Amino acid sequence: MDEGRKAAKLAKTQADRYVEELIEIATIPSISTLPEHAADIRLAAGWVCDRLRAIGFENVEVLPTEKHPVAYGEWLHAPSHATVLIYGHYDVQPVDPIDLWHSNPFEPSVQGDYLYGRGVSDMKGQLLAILKALELLRRTGELTVNVKVLVEGEEEIGSPSLQAFCLRERDRLSCDLILNTDGAMLGRDLPTLVYGLRGLAYFDVKLTGPDHDLHSGMFGGSVHNPAQVLCELVAGMHDTEGRVTLPGFYDKVQPLSTEDRAEIALGPCSDKEWRGLTGVPELFGEQGYTTLERVGARPTLEVNGLTSGYSGEGQKTVLPAKATAKISMRLVPDQDPKSVGEQLRSYFREHTPPTVRLELKTLAENPPVRIRRHAPGMSAAAQSLRETFGNEPVYTLEGGSIPAVSILGGTLGVDSVLMGFSLPDDNIHSLNERFYLPNLARGVEAYIRFFNHLATLGVV
Amino acid sequence: MDEGRKAAKLAKTQADRYVEELIEIATIPSISTLPEHAADIRLAAGWVCDRLRAIGFENVEVLPTEKHPVAYGEWLHAPSHATVLIYGHYDVQPVDPIDLWHSNPFEPSVQGDYLYGRGVSDMKGQLLAILKALELLRRTGELTVNVKVLVEGEEEIGSPSLQAFCLRERDRLSCDLILNTDGAMLGRDLPTLVYGLRGLAYFDVKLTGPDHDLHSGMFGGSVHNPAQVLCELVAGMHDTEGRVTLPGFYDKVQPLSTEDRAEIALGPCSDKEWRGLTGVPELFGEQGYTTLERVGARPTLEVNGLTSGYSGEGQKTVLPAKATAKISMRLVPDQDPKSVGEQLRSYFREHTPPTVRLELKTLAENPPVRIRRHAPGMSAAAQSLRETFGNEPVYTLEGGSIPAVSILGGTLGVDSVLMGFSLPDDNIHSLNERFYLPNLARGVEAYIRFFNHLATLGVV
Repeated sequence: MDEGRKAAKLAKTQADRYVEELIEIATIPSISTLPEHAADIRLAAGWVCDRLRAIGFENVEVLPTEKHPVAYGEWLHAPSHATVLIYGHYDVQPVDPIDLWHSNPFEPSVQGDYLYGRGVSDMKGQLLAILKALELLRRTGELTVNVKVLVEGEEEIGSPSLQAFCLRERDRLSCDLILNTDGAMLGRDLPTLVYGLRGLAYFDVKLTGPDHDLHSGMFGGSVHNPAQVLCELVAGMHDTEGRVTLPGFYDKVQPLSTEDRAEIALGPCSDKEWRGLTGVPELFGEQGYTTLERVGARPTLEVNGLTSGYSGEGQKTVLPAKATAKISMRLVPDQDPKSVGEQLRSYFREHTPPTVRLELKTLAENPPVRIRRHAPGMSAAAQSLRETFGNEPVYTLEGGSIPAVSILGGTLGVDSVLMGFSLPDDNIHSLNERFYLPNLARGVEAYIRFFNHLATLGVV
Repeated sequence: MDEGRKAAKLAKTQADRYVEELIEIATIPSISTLPEHAADIRLAAGWVCDRLRAIGFENVEVLPTEKHPVAYGEWLHAPSHATVLIYGHYDVQPVDPIDLWHSNPFEPSVQGDYLYGRGVSDMKGQLLAILKALELLRRTGELTVNVKVLVEGEEEIGSPSLQAFCLRERDRLSCDLILNTDGAMLGRDLPTLVYGLRGLAYFDVKLTGPDHDLHSGMFGGSVHNPAQVLCELVAGMHDTEGRVTLPGFYDKVQPLSTEDRAEIALGPCSDKEWRGLTGVPELFGEQGYTTLERVGARPTLEVNGLTSGYSGEGQKTVLPAKATAKISMRLVPDQDPKSVGEQLRSYFREHTPPTVRLELKTLAENPPVRIRRHAPGMSAAAQSLRETFGNEPVYTLEGGSIPAVSILGGTLGVDSVLMGFSLPDDNIHSLNERFYLPNLARGVEAYIRFFNHLATLGVV
């Protein structure tokens, strides 16, 4: 079957060069949430465009959005054939607390089989793999479909500009299939196809009591402590069995079918391994569901951050003026981010006492996604993974959210295939993020084979 | 009555020089809780000793303790007379968030009737006033009792070394009466004598779940979020009526007598004024008590700080590895800091789920204090205030804690008189701390008159 497929063979021979180039892009601190990194964002977008030009793509441009730009390029020299839109992102998460990293997050360093650095796994590793795949396909003349590449700079902040960008650029982006490269595997030798993603609704809550921090001795007992009020409000959103108590929260949640549960039960990660991955003394979650069901098929409400009062060493006898929480929900079909957001707002409006002032801001609203497991694009992806890894791919529901999947799917009316090579212990969004380097060459190979099969299967 | 009392008259004539010297000491960032200010602590202790030497005190020394040193000096040339031990502290609170101050906290600046800077009110203003009082009493030859001066550097961290220091230096510190200068007034023209102080028990609570921050999508729903657990634990320590629910918390609290309540009701501050001081939309506190009862005569449990997860701008989809709270209690007679600490520990031990790890550290344990209102030292103080301010002094129960009062009283077996000139709207422990400058000269005068009356009344 591989006869005449030079690109897939070449993929394995150039691993060293891949690492060098990955280090190059991973050195750019393209943190999308921090305004002081705006120049780095532009640098990273420019880097992607330079690569696209180098491999012969055309109409390569840094396209503006309301916030961070999109790197775009296309190769449209297969006029009678179909068009694949490739999606990725060049932005990364913040790195604080940076002093707890064991190496500088933006001076990526190889240790054993791993490259350590912010963004190497989420998702500059995959970004490099798809660029190298396209390069080899072009060099060998094996690229037989049209390709458009869209690499955004706002995935880590919830892709706030992507919807408007897609609407504006709908013609430019028109395609028959989307390949989303922001995906993950469930284990080193477990090629994985994600057929569902949770949605995300993210909120900033701020309670203000006194108009300045007070002395807790002079005033303690006479005013309502906003940190206390915040804790009570947060505590009131879960019951003791791990269920979210916001009225209506589960109303739209699709119950798990027996078939769904059986499929999820095939997932390769045991509770013991999951404990190992997380380091928790005991797992915990909604009663009546397994760990993989809890992260894949059930919604959550999490506190992502708390701040109030004094956080330094030792004691400061302060009664804080304010308390803040970052709160987010992961959503599953058919929950709607706007509706659950309204449930949260109602809860806070009803339960915040008149002794403090409430501010509540919405930072993200992305719906959950399900992809048909047996769509032709999925079959091409499955075959390419099977050949590259020598193992049958695992189908999984991922707990994370990739707003682009619902936004691109909804705007362009096309299915997505999610294929990526990040691993569960890569510490993405955390300290000491790393990328398993053997997955770089395997990623290049798998992407090449995907394009090969698209043509073979007549998928598009 | 003032005939022959030169020092008290001189007190009013030198106000400008007082401000200059106050600025000098307030420029030293002697923050006791932050290790990086150790050199400033030594500088401040040295400054106090220099002043004591300059006014003719002897055996002036920077005496070491386990942590920050004590500045000490004495004048013992009234051999047949009694000895007064003067207590003060030269350390100050931290200043974070420093960018919210409208001027640099350690470049004190005069604006109208106020000097702005960290520590000017708590308590470098009073420290300067007592030093100036002693200088004038010495210069006019009116100091007719023996005086020992002890200025510590750990008051703002709960005086952790003072007990051991007093036991070791008991002979050197022996005295007949203690004048504690770390006191406050209830209003500009309301000279105030504090006859009770709340105790303090202060704790650091840390909950650890995962061993690193996790991606809230990949892992959310499968592990217990330590921020959520912390909020639930904090929420569980109060009922909806503002009462602390730790079992046994109120068992030792002395009920307020009708006489107590009548006296407290004379307090000059209305609820409207209290709202103005604090800036809260509504006051709040334990049901069944007035504002002044709540802060003076009832115990509290307050959150002084919360931290967990991401606190930067925008969103970070992190499931935090840990969550911390600083929690303190203000105690009233006859509560015991060790017992309530044990109540807190029991509560956390019993209610922390096995899904997270608990660490609980005690940072302070100071018992509450009551002083006999009609003791002779109090009468001398009352008379000096009456003459200086032209108003009858107010007797009050203060909500704050001064560990030195119980430690010195207990170790040396002597009564304290608390007299100081800080005001409720001085923003102590908060942003933009300030000192009402007219109180500097009035403070000097009142302290001088106090020594005058001690002799007149034959108190000691």
